[in-house]
Amino acid sequence: MDKSIFENMTIPELEEEAIKLLSEKKYKDLRECLTFLNPADIADLMGGKMPEESAPLVFRILPKTIAADTFAYLDNDVQETLIRAFSDAELKQVIDELYIDDAVDLIEEMPANVVKRIIRNAAPSVRAQINELLNYPKDSAGSVMTTEFVDLKKDMTVEDAFVRIKKTGIDKETIYTCYVTDKNRILLGIVTAKKLLLSDLDAVIGDIMETNVISVTTKEDKEVVANLFHRYDFLALPVVDEEGRLVGIVTVDDALDVIHEETEEDFARMAAITTAEDSYFKTSAFKHAKNRIFWLILLMCTSTITGSILTSFEAAIAALPLMVAYIPMLMNTGGNCGSQSSVTVIRGLALNEIEIKDIFRVIRKEFLIALMVGFALSVFDFFWIWLISGEILVGAIVSLTLFVVVIIAKIIGCCMPILAKALRLDPALVSSPIITTICDMCAVSLYFAIINLTMGQFM
Amino acid sequence: MDKSIFENMTIPELEEEAIKLLSEKKYKDLRECLTFLNPADIADLMGGKMPEESAPLVFRILPKTIAADTFAYLDNDVQETLIRAFSDAELKQVIDELYIDDAVDLIEEMPANVVKRIIRNAAPSVRAQINELLNYPKDSAGSVMTTEFVDLKKDMTVEDAFVRIKKTGIDKETIYTCYVTDKNRILLGIVTAKKLLLSDLDAVIGDIMETNVISVTTKEDKEVVANLFHRYDFLALPVVDEEGRLVGIVTVDDALDVIHEETEEDFARMAAITTAEDSYFKTSAFKHAKNRIFWLILLMCTSTITGSILTSFEAAIAALPLMVAYIPMLMNTGGNCGSQSSVTVIRGLALNEIEIKDIFRVIRKEFLIALMVGFALSVFDFFWIWLISGEILVGAIVSLTLFVVVIIAKIIGCCMPILAKALRLDPALVSSPIITTICDMCAVSLYFAIINLTMGQFM
Repeated sequence: MDKSIFENMTIPELEEEAIKLLSEKKYKDLRECLTFLNPADIADLMGGKMPEESAPLVFRILPKTIAADTFAYLDNDVQETLIRAFSDAELKQVIDELYIDDAVDLIEEMPANVVKRIIRNAAPSVRAQINELLNYPKDSAGSVMTTEFVDLKKDMTVEDAFVRIKKTGIDKETIYTCYVTDKNRILLGIVTAKKLLLSDLDAVIGDIMETNVISVTTKEDKEVVANLFHRYDFLALPVVDEEGRLVGIVTVDDALDVIHEETEEDFARMAAITTAEDSYFKTSAFKHAKNRIFWLILLMCTSTITGSILTSFEAAIAALPLMVAYIPMLMNTGGNCGSQSSVTVIRGLALNEIEIKDIFRVIRKEFLIALMVGFALSVFDFFWIWLISGEILVGAIVSLTLFVVVIIAKIIGCCMPILAKALRLDPALVSSPIITTICDMCAVSLYFAIINLTMGQFM
Repeated sequence: MDKSIFENMTIPELEEEAIKLLSEKKYKDLRECLTFLNPADIADLMGGKMPEESAPLVFRILPKTIAADTFAYLDNDVQETLIRAFSDAELKQVIDELYIDDAVDLIEEMPANVVKRIIRNAAPSVRAQINELLNYPKDSAGSVMTTEFVDLKKDMTVEDAFVRIKKTGIDKETIYTCYVTDKNRILLGIVTAKKLLLSDLDAVIGDIMETNVISVTTKEDKEVVANLFHRYDFLALPVVDEEGRLVGIVTVDDALDVIHEETEEDFARMAAITTAEDSYFKTSAFKHAKNRIFWLILLMCTSTITGSILTSFEAAIAALPLMVAYIPMLMNTGGNCGSQSSVTVIRGLALNEIEIKDIFRVIRKEFLIALMVGFALSVFDFFWIWLISGEILVGAIVSLTLFVVVIIAKIIGCCMPILAKALRLDPALVSSPIITTICDMCAVSLYFAIINLTMGQFM
């Protein structure tokens, strides 16, 4: 088959062609075809449209240069299938070719017996680095960094730097930021590849390096690290230990992964779902159900408390059944107000716009907002009820309740995430569904308290 | 003051020092101090902790090399203050120094009279590029790209490429991906700076360039573009017009901005808030209130429909007031089930894991999930009510209703976002609060329908 055929194909066409060539067992053409695809796309094919049992075969015909990259993009189950099919020699080759941080990710996801085989087959230097990275706490900068970076010395010239990059750069995750360290590995400064390319060959690194470098420690929260990338437009960020020694770097693609992961976790928590690790269709219905049921049962139980409160007003309900009609509106509006505040504060906390010490400023602001929103809603509601039912007293009771409910909901909504953070919990945990349930109880209690106060004589 | 003092300061210390030096009018030291800060931090100082009227003064003492960068990071109100204070010559200098995409962002946010002054003072070539970029539709790849990239020719050697980068690279937003075009500006391939640095100086670009390049057209949705960065770990992505001519590139920092913006928009929509443009504290309480009230009123009105449904069952409520106690639980569980499905589908759509054509696969999956979740919840609920109240019939009615409500809620929750997308609306618009309101109505109607069927004889 002529190579030029593939050149003019789009990605979906290439994917279809690859599947066809695989089923026709035209492996030489398949290999050619796959080289025109990106590793991320090949990984997608192997984990999706191609039959699962063909994965080892397809992987083996991949050119070496893209095999390791493709492996890093594969889903965990396909990776496991491959590792089980690999000979020790094949396994060693793949592990040594992987970027260290990808190897660590792999090890964290594999079952114990597979991990043992990986560790046993890795080259000693790779094994040492993997072990070092595995020791950093989950969610720390240390756990997402890579130990493969270009380090330069102060007294090198730009020409020396180019030689060093040419010699060691091929295995580094990025060569676009180079790190200048002293003999104790203390980070002195950085030089970007742009700076190197725009400087004279005999310029000295010590003179052109940037010295006011922003770095993080290995223990820093990975979400904080990811936010720094957005704030400063970095391509990579150095990670130092407590003595200021450079131990690794985080690259922008890993920061993107962290942002992606944390965002999806927050979205899931806001909808009271335990986070799924796979994509929607890859996660089984049973797993989806399992991820959703815990919060549903918890919230169902707590909302029976609202029910019990209602039960205690049985007499009022029997005497004034019409008043029940406004309960859904009061509950919903309270819940919506509360979740507006909580989501706003949760995002503010996630992006470091709001800190724990700001709690009183936040309460003051939310109180002001609640006064305005509550006033507008109550007035609207009063005239609406008056217009629809002609009952001024009912309108007054409902809108008074509404006003107070809005204020309580906004205060609860803004305080809970900050308190959660102060208790070192994820603020997103106390998200809309929980806030809604709490606001419901307040709304119902308050409503009947006000009814009792004003219409007590009817019961 | 000795320069080395600043060298050992942390960012917060430098910021405090800068504020002190400004108030003491020690401008020479201030200038020195600011060079140790990142442009993003200087912009933060000028827009926050420093007095607003000092902004033009501080900006003028900044070294030229970091002034333009700092300007790009400033909030719109500070940018406007500065532009109004600038002479025409100063304005021209800033605009010409800005990256084109930052200049376009600026123009999109400024009032008309300021825009006129900017355009009038820009160099003709800059003006032409700005005008070109302003013509692309909002939210398109064209609107977030920059026209400043390094272009190479096929027959250049690596050495020629370095010369070209050295000559033109200083003004380019990135030099790490270079684009190979023919004489008609058709994109032929890309060469990364890594490839250039690792190749021999006499290698020919045409031989080392990568030809299977992923590119987007100017009209592509910017969210799709941003997702490509996450999928393929790109640093930059070429943008071509309909004839395949290279017209610009999107860099990873701009992709990060898009992801940030879209995520915040989705979070806000899920909490029924109109998106705020500024950070929490910078947005006034009145603006916050305005952003929240529209959806609250709309949802309040729709939840009165649930109220009317309840009113129509007035007789049943008066006869069986205890049954009211289960309404909050049914409403909440329905709402939570619906929003779990809608959020899952909204995220799947945002990340291109789910497409419109998948609607029936999604419904099938959600139906299966709903069967499992509904069954578990109903059984739990039945025994819970039996245990608490001793009423088997009530337990049966409530848990039957619950089972059906869960199924309806999950189906509505998964269909609405896909239908919204099919209608070219943002799926996040039909998020939790709206789904909750709809599920409420279904829950209440169904509950009383079942009560009427089974306990009709009591009324």
